[in-house]
Amino acid sequence: MPGKVFLIGAGPGDPELLTRKAARILECANIVLHDSLVGSAILELIPATAQRVDVGKRRGLRLLSQDEINSLLVASAQEHATVVRLKGGDPLLFGRAAEEIRALRAAHIDFEIVPGISAAFGAAAAAQISLTDRRLASHVLFSTYSRAPESHVLPLLGITAETTVVIYMPGPDYTGVCHWLLESGIASETPCLVISKASQREQSVRRTALSQLAALAPLPAPALLLVGRVIAQQSDSPAERSLLFDVLSQGDSSRPPVS
Amino acid sequence: MPGKVFLIGAGPGDPELLTRKAARILECANIVLHDSLVGSAILELIPATAQRVDVGKRRGLRLLSQDEINSLLVASAQEHATVVRLKGGDPLLFGRAAEEIRALRAAHIDFEIVPGISAAFGAAAAAQISLTDRRLASHVLFSTYSRAPESHVLPLLGITAETTVVIYMPGPDYTGVCHWLLESGIASETPCLVISKASQREQSVRRTALSQLAALAPLPAPALLLVGRVIAQQSDSPAERSLLFDVLSQGDSSRPPVS
Repeated sequence: MPGKVFLIGAGPGDPELLTRKAARILECANIVLHDSLVGSAILELIPATAQRVDVGKRRGLRLLSQDEINSLLVASAQEHATVVRLKGGDPLLFGRAAEEIRALRAAHIDFEIVPGISAAFGAAAAAQISLTDRRLASHVLFSTYSRAPESHVLPLLGITAETTVVIYMPGPDYTGVCHWLLESGIASETPCLVISKASQREQSVRRTALSQLAALAPLPAPALLLVGRVIAQQSDSPAERSLLFDVLSQGDSSRPPVS
Repeated sequence: MPGKVFLIGAGPGDPELLTRKAARILECANIVLHDSLVGSAILELIPATAQRVDVGKRRGLRLLSQDEINSLLVASAQEHATVVRLKGGDPLLFGRAAEEIRALRAAHIDFEIVPGISAAFGAAAAAQISLTDRRLASHVLFSTYSRAPESHVLPLLGITAETTVVIYMPGPDYTGVCHWLLESGIASETPCLVISKASQREQSVRRTALSQLAALAPLPAPALLLVGRVIAQQSDSPAERSLLFDVLSQGDSSRPPVS
């Protein structure tokens, strides 16, 4: 009888941000197939008795194709009772879980999904920025900037001043990302924040206006780009803060307008 | 010297879906201010020595205003070393954390944010549906359906067939939600899923087409509405599955088109 596969979200990197359920299942895994970007502090939680396979891609070195990962998952469940597929963040947001789920269903393998803290939440917590704000942002759009040959980087549609935009995997081409977001209609003075390795010891954060994004030196992956008025919540820049306070004064009908 | 405030995400309800960090801090809390919708299984983790305050609203009964919560948070930090503000899901997505953060900053209170599994990820994991799919959905829009007097339920903008839409707190007015989403340009045959109390014992799930949403009996809060082609991933309905397979056949350029 085949074993069970657990698709587990490892969260943003800090091993304390694993869920209790993820930690419990990881402890009794027989084999763990993990992405390369899952941090070493989390990999240390894998028991010494478990087989460990890095199925990720790193620095352009393609270790396994998605089809090969799917096949390996199915084959692992034929051999082991508890198979863990460990992904950074949450497996169901930009995690390619859909393909693995299809493969597991097709092979009639029992599986369970254990959610994880997705990168955006780890980054927002680290930067102390609420992604929504009753007076500033009522929507959050999660997207990704992919340069894969089969993908078309079409402008994002329907972004308003009330949208917080979260770009997963912005990559090192900040000039391209900047053009894409400007083409999507985002105002050039909109504040944005790049967070690299959120929640990890090597965390770094850069804040700028969208128009100046291309001038930043790229930060190491995994990184995340946040764009929107909410970024000004935590700003030390007088210009951004005055932008924020203008918005707050105008937007809050319970207070008299600033004259 | 004032204490420290931890804004903690309690996740979707299953106490195993708390992060290890959240559980550790909760164990040494002196006072916990929690929302009403934080499940009882999680509240049981609060030590007996800690003061517990339900600051939420439930069934229309307004317990404390947001301003009163802000003041109580600041006052609690004057009296206690470890103050926990416990919110369902993640505090930074539709959690009104922005206002509490502003109040804490204004009062110069030290605080830290501990992310939680937001409802969408708990619900998607329970329903085994990936929110993104390389061939079906490249964007995810998080929004909420509010009937608060000061809010205007404007149509969502820029929704395409590649967008997965996640509506937090859809409320019991499914007719209103349905009209709003149709007005936002979402096709009436788009599959949608309502998930109530995801990850909890009382979890319930209803699947339908958007056009039929109004015919469903409302499920109890906390609930979440997912809308998009990705829902068909897990469908038992032949019509939905054929929709999905049409999309997959057309969208996957590596396979010959179905003729």
